[in-house]
Amino acid sequence: MDRFEKVTVIKKANVYFEGNVTSRTIILADGTRKTLGIILPGTYEFGTGDREIMEVLAGVIKVLLPGSETWTPYAAGQSFEVPANSVFQVSVDQAADYCCSYLKEG
Amino acid sequence: MDRFEKVTVIKKANVYFEGNVTSRTIILADGTRKTLGIILPGTYEFGTGDREIMEVLAGVIKVLLPGSETWTPYAAGQSFEVPANSVFQVSVDQAADYCCSYLKEG
Repeated sequence: MDRFEKVTVIKKANVYFEGNVTSRTIILADGTRKTLGIILPGTYEFGTGDREIMEVLAGVIKVLLPGSETWTPYAAGQSFEVPANSVFQVSVDQAADYCCSYLKEG
Repeated sequence: MDRFEKVTVIKKANVYFEGNVTSRTIILADGTRKTLGIILPGTYEFGTGDREIMEVLAGVIKVLLPGSETWTPYAAGQSFEVPANSVFQVSVDQAADYCCSYLKEG
């Protein structure tokens, strides 16, 4: 699926780290929320609220998941999951494009 | 209006200048196309196809319009227009957020 249809897009961007990480929020017809974002070269720490699934759309995102001491690279077409209420780090060498899905715990 | 409703969002970003300028394309219910983008610090040259209206959502975008020798700053809430089939430059000192509308000549 190369597009999302019949969604609501929040006009203003979410801006982190002086714009080195930015995203746009979309809300699907079923009420679920996703963000479409760009990570520029660097290493960044984020915290989660909901559980997250990060799908890499372009580039390579290296991730250091909570409790791990190993950076794992994920390339375009791959996804990784981040637990709810946790802290993780991402690092990229070139601009990376991603889609993040937020999952309410059932 | 802080959001666009019932739109199609193209999943992958448009990436320019190694990611220093990026945008997402949205298509409104009436078929018109807009992009929501981020410009990171620097000066960039772009060419237009359709006529464009650039609305600044956050930050300040300085623009050098075709035929002009003067850079004009536009702040959040302001818009500027770029003629079709022309070349223009933008420059920002801090990350800027924008919404670009593409207008077919009638």
